[in-house]
Amino acid sequence: MPLLSDIAKLIGFPPPAGADIDITGLATLDEAQASELSFVGSEQYLPLLQNTKAAAVIVQKRVKLPNTWTRPALMVDDADLAIAKVLRLIAPPVPRPPLGIDQMARVETSATLGDGVSVGPFVYIGHRARIGNRVALHAGVYIGDDVVIGDDCELFPHVTLRERIVLGQRVIIHAGSVLGTDGFGYRWDGKQHQKIPQIGTVIVEDDVEIGSCVCIDRAKFSTTRIGRGTKIDNLVQIGHNVQVGPHCIIVGQAGLAGSSKLGAGVVLGGQTAVRDHISIGDGAMAAACSAIAEDVEAKQIVSGMPALPHRQSLREQAALRRLPDLVVQIRKLQDELDLLKGK
Amino acid sequence: MPLLSDIAKLIGFPPPAGADIDITGLATLDEAQASELSFVGSEQYLPLLQNTKAAAVIVQKRVKLPNTWTRPALMVDDADLAIAKVLRLIAPPVPRPPLGIDQMARVETSATLGDGVSVGPFVYIGHRARIGNRVALHAGVYIGDDVVIGDDCELFPHVTLRERIVLGQRVIIHAGSVLGTDGFGYRWDGKQHQKIPQIGTVIVEDDVEIGSCVCIDRAKFSTTRIGRGTKIDNLVQIGHNVQVGPHCIIVGQAGLAGSSKLGAGVVLGGQTAVRDHISIGDGAMAAACSAIAEDVEAKQIVSGMPALPHRQSLREQAALRRLPDLVVQIRKLQDELDLLKGK
Amino acid sequence: MPLLSDIAKLIGFPPPAGADIDITGLATLDEAQASELSFVGSEQYLPLLQNTKAAAVIVQKRVKLPNTWTRPALMVDDADLAIAKVLRLIAPPVPRPPLGIDQMARVETSATLGDGVSVGPFVYIGHRARIGNRVALHAGVYIGDDVVIGDDCELFPHVTLRERIVLGQRVIIHAGSVLGTDGFGYRWDGKQHQKIPQIGTVIVEDDVEIGSCVCIDRAKFSTTRIGRGTKIDNLVQIGHNVQVGPHCIIVGQAGLAGSSKLGAGVVLGGQTAVRDHISIGDGAMAAACSAIAEDVEAKQIVSGMPALPHRQSLREQAALRRLPDLVVQIRKLQDELDLLKGK
Repeated sequence: MPLLSDIAKLIGFPPPAGADIDITGLATLDEAQASELSFVGSEQYLPLLQNTKAAAVIVQKRVKLPNTWTRPALMVDDADLAIAKVLRLIAPPVPRPPLGIDQMARVETSATLGDGVSVGPFVYIGHRARIGNRVALHAGVYIGDDVVIGDDCELFPHVTLRERIVLGQRVIIHAGSVLGTDGFGYRWDGKQHQKIPQIGTVIVEDDVEIGSCVCIDRAKFSTTRIGRGTKIDNLVQIGHNVQVGPHCIIVGQAGLAGSSKLGAGVVLGGQTAVRDHISIGDGAMAAACSAIAEDVEAKQIVSGMPALPHRQSLREQAALRRLPDLVVQIRKLQDELDLLKGK
Repeated sequence: MPLLSDIAKLIGFPPPAGADIDITGLATLDEAQASELSFVGSEQYLPLLQNTKAAAVIVQKRVKLPNTWTRPALMVDDADLAIAKVLRLIAPPVPRPPLGIDQMARVETSATLGDGVSVGPFVYIGHRARIGNRVALHAGVYIGDDVVIGDDCELFPHVTLRERIVLGQRVIIHAGSVLGTDGFGYRWDGKQHQKIPQIGTVIVEDDVEIGSCVCIDRAKFSTTRIGRGTKIDNLVQIGHNVQVGPHCIIVGQAGLAGSSKLGAGVVLGGQTAVRDHISIGDGAMAAACSAIAEDVEAKQIVSGMPALPHRQSLREQAALRRLPDLVVQIRKLQDELDLLKGK
Repeated sequence: MPLLSDIAKLIGFPPPAGADIDITGLATLDEAQASELSFVGSEQYLPLLQNTKAAAVIVQKRVKLPNTWTRPALMVDDADLAIAKVLRLIAPPVPRPPLGIDQMARVETSATLGDGVSVGPFVYIGHRARIGNRVALHAGVYIGDDVVIGDDCELFPHVTLRERIVLGQRVIIHAGSVLGTDGFGYRWDGKQHQKIPQIGTVIVEDDVEIGSCVCIDRAKFSTTRIGRGTKIDNLVQIGHNVQVGPHCIIVGQAGLAGSSKLGAGVVLGGQTAVRDHISIGDGAMAAACSAIAEDVEAKQIVSGMPALPHRQSLREQAALRRLPDLVVQIRKLQDELDLLKGK
């Protein structure tokens, strides 16, 4: 447990008087216990100060605390950043299976495991799979034949990596996600949909984090690729041959159809849909629920269904709000004009 | 197997003549077997009566049966309610693992289990987990360290509860759902997205039912909460720190972004999206595919993308249906006006 | 490894000079290795020819290769079809568990298994389940009591089939999908949502393929049915009592609400939503992100939210693009008219 003075030091504030107390956690003003730290990010939260039990608060500098507050207050330029730092300090370690291979795991003899690997119960590791150092495979993970996993990866329960998938280093995949399902490809032969074999693979580069119940399909051939440092939220669908650049953010329930391509640092809001074979340029952003049916230029912000440049989308939405009244106005215009003409 | 007379009694109708026959199931008119019961909810189904094999029918009172129908008919005020009652009577019990701990399960020694618990094969129960009485954990369920599960809960195959999750009593979670994944939170440090630790938890209150492949993320700190009696359909995404009130209905593929808040009895249609930090008041309803980007007042009905009060949304949609014709009309108006001005 | 001459023969092109070389794979022009085959589907890819390492290329007939290309080229009428054929030839076999029952599987004694069945580790097979010939159940699959699986089915890791589900022959289900969850049905009794028992089942007909993390709910009574030859992509939601006809294509993240009905050969784009009790006629198509709230006639193409006939939808979208300018124009019209009237 850190002392309040440790925390003050961490976030660059001189330790206030009475800072040699243990801090057991971080919580909102209304939920904090007497040994916990809380925070005031804006003035709207000031009313909650009166009844909070928090031992101390982190306060955004522009917020003026009432005189009645007598417990320690750590003033910071960026409360969000300060909180992130505190969370990193006090976060409990994520429980992992013990080092070694659980007796209830099944590891094929041709698989190779690095040093310091943790393999939980009910884990399957296929033929010739290569698992890097310090990898943690939680209970029920499935690793197919010929999979390669880099150092320091962590796969949570029930993750499925089908055959030949490649993960870089420090990749995190949350529970229930599936990498390497056959891409969705068929040809109608006049009688039925003939399956087109999907012989490619998926490459996930270093420092990628993938949420729960995410599906990333193997390529028809070549690779479906997730660029380094990209973060993917839960329930996202990534079709075959998609190319996601580095450092992208893909929010929950977004769907990328086959062969779509994201540049570097692209941000896709929740439930965004991207049409197949579309390109989205570096640093572009799509608001939640956008349906992207055409290429998006670098740094462009789009929104709407279909997705348009955000400014245009806002103008159309504003006009649409007025449309029912316009209908009435046009009818009147017509009447007045008819009257004039009749003169 | 109940007698038809038992069923008549259950739904408050005097047993008709010939009601001492066994009823083996309930089915639609065209699928019912000779020992099954069927129903006529409205007049549109009367043509199917002629060929049904059903032993008897439940009939909505306002529907007039033809004279040719000579088998028993149970007339009721509310056919849906009557059917629900019959289903409760004839529903076969859901198969559960036998009482006790399967030899192929792994239960850490510090975990504690109540009376009458069923633990299937390939189940993992973590350190210090506390499992209430009569809990059923189907094959492949994962229970993390320090999880608390109340009495009479049932978790279907491959459910993952990460560390420190808390379930109340009588909670049902269907196959493949994941509770307690890290919330989706990062800070860009100029080079990469730095992960913000997510140290909170998830609390699921009594009588909640959660569908399949649902993702409920753990809070950044404090708790993500699902209020008592709330029902969640399949493939729903619930972000970190979301607060769902009691008795809500959240239909399939809806997504609630971080820190959004639902009051009591809120209904969200399928594929609804709720923006982060949005509040939705008690008893509000959102039509399917709504994209809720602003707070919604209690009892308001919203629809559309972006979501608007439903009446306004309908007006706009009606106007939009006329818009192509309006474009033409405005062009003509302009022409006529120009002509007039030219006079 | 096939020879290039074998491939030429397969796709109906006379083997070119130098065709007795081994082909180790198929890849795009920029990714192909020196022993791999590549392809040129249209002129836009010609610039990549210069630097490709590919041993030979398949070329769409209308594309004119530059004189500088001296390696073998196989000219075809339909490059996509040719590639599908080559993929079928060179696709590596999908790894399966060895024949027989893994020692770490659990098969109830009343279950019956056909010939040539592969049951991986951590598989559960319930009481009285009947598994056909040559079925492959990958690690962690769950088969409930009384399930029936036809010949030649393949279920990937962590698939859950709840009790009484029926699969036809040659059904493929990808990792993490769940069939047979209770349909989402409740009745409000004044105090809480009362669960309506869901006593029906799911029938999946021959030659259906189902993606990853798909949810198909059991019927309230009778059956939820997926017609023969239908293909379902990842993360699709199919509610209770839905009837999907034969040879449909349902793209990722689509959602079909309860009792909706699809005819034969219906195509639903990604993220499409279908309202409960809606009927969609044979051969109808819905663009991605459509929200289908009314019946759709056979062969109709719909798009938009709400879904409209596609032509109408395009007209409205085109008009909507002009709406902000129309608002301005109408204001001017009004001004001009007022001026005229004032004359």
